[in-house]
Amino acid sequence: MHSLGDTSNFADKLVSAVMGKRSHVVVGLDPHFEMIPPALRRGVRFEDPANMASIIEKFCIEVIEVVADLVPAVKPQVAFFERLGAAGFDSLQRVVHAAHRHGLLVISDAKRGDIGSTAAAYAEFHIGFYSDDSGREHEGLGADAMTVNAYLGSDSLEPYLKFMSRGKGIFVLAKTSNPASTEIQDRLINDNAGRATVYETVADLANKVASRHMGQQGFGSVGIVVGATHPEQAFHLRSSYPHLYFLVPGYGAQGGTAKDVASCFDQRGLGAIVNASRSILFAYRDSQFSALNPGDWAKASRQATIRMRDEINAELSEAGRNPW
Amino acid sequence: MHSLGDTSNFADKLVSAVMGKRSHVVVGLDPHFEMIPPALRRGVRFEDPANMASIIEKFCIEVIEVVADLVPAVKPQVAFFERLGAAGFDSLQRVVHAAHRHGLLVISDAKRGDIGSTAAAYAEFHIGFYSDDSGREHEGLGADAMTVNAYLGSDSLEPYLKFMSRGKGIFVLAKTSNPASTEIQDRLINDNAGRATVYETVADLANKVASRHMGQQGFGSVGIVVGATHPEQAFHLRSSYPHLYFLVPGYGAQGGTAKDVASCFDQRGLGAIVNASRSILFAYRDSQFSALNPGDWAKASRQATIRMRDEINAELSEAGRNPW
Repeated sequence: MHSLGDTSNFADKLVSAVMGKRSHVVVGLDPHFEMIPPALRRGVRFEDPANMASIIEKFCIEVIEVVADLVPAVKPQVAFFERLGAAGFDSLQRVVHAAHRHGLLVISDAKRGDIGSTAAAYAEFHIGFYSDDSGREHEGLGADAMTVNAYLGSDSLEPYLKFMSRGKGIFVLAKTSNPASTEIQDRLINDNAGRATVYETVADLANKVASRHMGQQGFGSVGIVVGATHPEQAFHLRSSYPHLYFLVPGYGAQGGTAKDVASCFDQRGLGAIVNASRSILFAYRDSQFSALNPGDWAKASRQATIRMRDEINAELSEAGRNPW
Repeated sequence: MHSLGDTSNFADKLVSAVMGKRSHVVVGLDPHFEMIPPALRRGVRFEDPANMASIIEKFCIEVIEVVADLVPAVKPQVAFFERLGAAGFDSLQRVVHAAHRHGLLVISDAKRGDIGSTAAAYAEFHIGFYSDDSGREHEGLGADAMTVNAYLGSDSLEPYLKFMSRGKGIFVLAKTSNPASTEIQDRLINDNAGRATVYETVADLANKVASRHMGQQGFGSVGIVVGATHPEQAFHLRSSYPHLYFLVPGYGAQGGTAKDVASCFDQRGLGAIVNASRSILFAYRDSQFSALNPGDWAKASRQATIRMRDEINAELSEAGRNPW
């Protein structure tokens, strides 16, 4: 039994949400408009950005409604909104508000990475605020956390940390789920300063920062992204960095299974949230849900979410690592 | 004497613009609103995103107007627009249009880096287009090139290449100008696959891709970002990768000098464009322009641009590497 930590710390809020929902699943909101359910598009043509933005917004909000009781968080993929320019950002804003109305944490999947004052602008928009001439604070997107790229080094992470005291978090890309992640991330650094792969070096950098923003549940507000498609690497990272929460993409459509992601969790059955996007959003296209009426795309998404939640919980339970 | 290449290739268009302007300078449009000239803000308070977006837009467009005859390109820093959400993206769009109306190439400094279909969405917005239900193409921002982060590997670059045949380009972050760039980028990879720093490994990856999109002037439409603050590293990269155009940030405010950036150019005096942002945009704050009337911020920006252009040209000329 966990006592719920100080909710002004992002990692504590995340653990609390995971415990409350009994679910480690994050639904990735990646609204590829090519795959939006026809039922939702009936009579509406993709014509201009505003029109398309309103369709992907409606889609994401309906998904949020059907999964809200099943997951601790959603992760909008900013690229699919950005593709539509200003209209897309307006929709993204409303999607974030909808998720918050439904009590979900929001992780903005932006993968931003830039230097000093530029990183500050990204941080202010995604998880923070800026102050106007009167000193009044203007919140941007209002996400609870965001993904960042640390290729530029620790000074590129600093501006995000300012918002940790307000309950915000970041996940640093360490080992991503895509095949070519080997090309840079898996290479072995071997020099006077040490011997470790590139992704371990990045994880180490995240860990140093995380230790400054620890919650009461043993995790820092800085976590890392570790692909579900790399269970061995995940196992080693898990052992090396007990205080880093893992955001684990690549489940489902990209090939990661419950068995694969089990190595991302600690002995308590905490320390990882597992994201699926396509296999949940577009479950209606999956033959296993073909018995459903074509209009029941949302029901297919809900069933796919339940199944993923249960698969992961069963895997952890079998290993005696159920946190509830 | 250079003949101007096929202008459907980005690298050729860039060389052509550099030759036409006799200038290697790129003006970075980084509208920190804290530093917008008071003259421009007179009577206008920063209050809400729309209000602030319109001020930074006006500022950027006035800068474009005063530097248009002096430089081949401008480089809007997306973060400062993104900070203002949808209103910021609307302003960014109008800034890009203004730059094009003034005959300038536009490099969107977005530093995006994501996998497959997500990278495609970023590519479509910044330098490409998406097709609607009728197969009609909708251009996004319409920039000529953008900066990207290759930490995720070559499959994260692929989606951008689709637009190279339409005259578009990318600059891959290799060695950035910030102090902490040493932490990951300078580490030495030494494994079965080879021995090179992380940034050289990334440059190598860019080079492989660049070779598939060569222009008639000897450069590919894929270039790299190399900080002006690292002349030695730049020298080695220049020797190793004659076909990569360098986008060189860090001149001026960050400490890079004309002498430092000279090593980024090849024997013809081509192969690099040098960016300055703060030292040009906010030249009015510089004591060397204090003789100007405070309302003459634009004149200070123009003078700072001329000075930087002339410094670089003089440095190259001294080394007998003037391309015109």
